[in-house]
Amino acid sequence: MKWISEESILIVGLGLIGGSYARALKRLGFHVAAIDIDQPSIDYALENGIIDDGYTTVEPAVVSAADVVVFGLYPTIFKQWVESYQQYFKPGAMITDVTGVKSCVVYDIQSILRPDVEFIAAHPMAGKEVFGVQNSDERIFHDANYIVVPTEKNTPEAIEWCRSLGMILGFHHIAVLSPEEHDQMIGFVSQLTHVIAVSLMGCSDDHSLVDYTGDSFRDLTRIARINDKMWSELFMMNKEALLEQMDRFTEVFGNFRNMLANDDVEGMRAAMRLSTERRAWFDR
Amino acid sequence: MKWISEESILIVGLGLIGGSYARALKRLGFHVAAIDIDQPSIDYALENGIIDDGYTTVEPAVVSAADVVVFGLYPTIFKQWVESYQQYFKPGAMITDVTGVKSCVVYDIQSILRPDVEFIAAHPMAGKEVFGVQNSDERIFHDANYIVVPTEKNTPEAIEWCRSLGMILGFHHIAVLSPEEHDQMIGFVSQLTHVIAVSLMGCSDDHSLVDYTGDSFRDLTRIARINDKMWSELFMMNKEALLEQMDRFTEVFGNFRNMLANDDVEGMRAAMRLSTERRAWFDR
Repeated sequence: MKWISEESILIVGLGLIGGSYARALKRLGFHVAAIDIDQPSIDYALENGIIDDGYTTVEPAVVSAADVVVFGLYPTIFKQWVESYQQYFKPGAMITDVTGVKSCVVYDIQSILRPDVEFIAAHPMAGKEVFGVQNSDERIFHDANYIVVPTEKNTPEAIEWCRSLGMILGFHHIAVLSPEEHDQMIGFVSQLTHVIAVSLMGCSDDHSLVDYTGDSFRDLTRIARINDKMWSELFMMNKEALLEQMDRFTEVFGNFRNMLANDDVEGMRAAMRLSTERRAWFDR
Repeated sequence: MKWISEESILIVGLGLIGGSYARALKRLGFHVAAIDIDQPSIDYALENGIIDDGYTTVEPAVVSAADVVVFGLYPTIFKQWVESYQQYFKPGAMITDVTGVKSCVVYDIQSILRPDVEFIAAHPMAGKEVFGVQNSDERIFHDANYIVVPTEKNTPEAIEWCRSLGMILGFHHIAVLSPEEHDQMIGFVSQLTHVIAVSLMGCSDDHSLVDYTGDSFRDLTRIARINDKMWSELFMMNKEALLEQMDRFTEVFGNFRNMLANDDVEGMRAAMRLSTERRAWFDR
C-alpha cells in the first residue's frame, strides 16, 4: 500500500495528536474525516479547516470509506472500539495508532482483528503540556521521533508504509522497535522521568521555594504538570517495564547516596564524569 | 556602609560569577580589581575592560585598598585564603562571597576573622553550564534569586548592605535565610536535582537512546553535564542536608513505586494531581 493522495483517512479520537495528524495529512491533499465524542472538538476542527468531515458517533459508512484509520484513543477505549466496530472497516484498510504503550495493546488488537485488514502500531513521540485539537500543531513533529512498532504478524509492506507515514508527517527521525523494546525504552526516557518529576513535587509543600528556585528545579519538574487520567493508564499498561526502570534508577541513586555518606569523593566524581560524557550524546 | 561609587572593590577568584560581578560593578562606576591565579583569565578581563586592575598573586597593597572584597573561590580555598591573608584587609572592610553552601563555611570564616572587618555571606543563584571569566555575563543575574545568609554575628547594617548589593547587581529577587535554611533549600532545589540527573545518566549506556529521546529526558538531564570537582566539593560540604533530601525523595519515589506495583491507580492519580497543582506555583 503506497500513499496516494486520493486516499481517504479517518482519525478516531481528535485530540492534540489526532488533530496534528489531521492538519498535516489534509495539507498533503488527503481527504480527512474524524470521529470524536466531543462535539466542540469536531466543530472547532471543521471551522478551522483541520478536517473535511466530522462526526460524534460511529457512522458505518464513514468507517467503510476510509483507506486508512488512525486511532488517537486511550488504550482501553481503543480495544473496545475495535471490538465493537471492526465489521465496518473497508477490506484491505490499513490501521495504525498513536498509543504510548505497545506490548499490552498491539498483540491484543492484532489477535482480535479481521484478517483482511492490517494493524501496524506506531508511536509519534511528540506532545505538549496542553491538550485537545484546539492546541494541535503539526510543527510538534518536526523535532520529534517516530517509532514504528511491528510484530511478527505484520507484513514488510505495512512496516514500510508506516515508516513513510512518519516521514510525510514531518518527523525528524523514524525508527523501528519491537513492542518489548519500545516499552523498555519508553519506560526509561519518558515514564521514569515523569515519575521522578511527580515525586520531586511530592517532596515538599513549601510554597516559598519558588523564591529560591533556579532553572535546574524548573527543568526537572516541568513535566510534573501531568494529565493524571492518561498517564496513570499508560503506567498501568507498562507496569512491568516501568517497575524495572524505577528499580534500576533506585539502585543507581542509592549507590550515589552511599558514596556521599561514605565520603567517597572519587566515586562521586567518576559518576559525574560519566554522566557528563553520556549527556553529550544528547546535545543537538 | 552605603554604596558610594568611589569605593574600591576587589574580587578574589575571577570565574564565571566573579567576572559577572566585575562587569556589573564596573559599569556602575566602582573601581574593580581582581586576583586570580590564572594569568589568561586576568589578561582576558583586562583586555575586555571587565576589571580595572588584575593580579595573579596576593598583593598586600591591593587587598588593603579594597573597601569591599568579594570571594568567588571554592569553599576550601576560601577559608585558607582568609587565614593566610586577612592581615591585609582594610579596617572596616566588608567581605562577602558567592559560595553555594553556607553552614560549613560561614561560621568558620566568622570565627577566625579579624573583629574590625565583617563577613556577610551571600549566594547568587545564577550560573551556566560553562565556566570562566570568558563566559561571564551580568545578564545571568536578571532572572535569578540572590540569597543573603546572615548569622547572629552580623550587624543589621551589613545585612542591609548585602541586600542592596544583590539589587545593584540586578537580581530579580532578594531573600534572607539562615545558613541552615539555605542549605536545606539548596539541598533540595539544586543539589538533589543534580544527583537525580547524574543518576539518570548512570542508568543506561545505550547510545541509541538518543534516537528515541524527547524533551522530557533532555530536560531532566541537562544538568547531568557537571563540573565534578566543584559539585563533589559542594555535596561534601552540605552532606547532612543533601542526604536528608535524598532520603526524603527516595521515600516519596518508593511510595509511588508501591502504588504502581499494587495497582493503586487512585493513589497515583492523587500524586499526579498534587504535583500538577504544586508545579503551577513555579510558572513564570
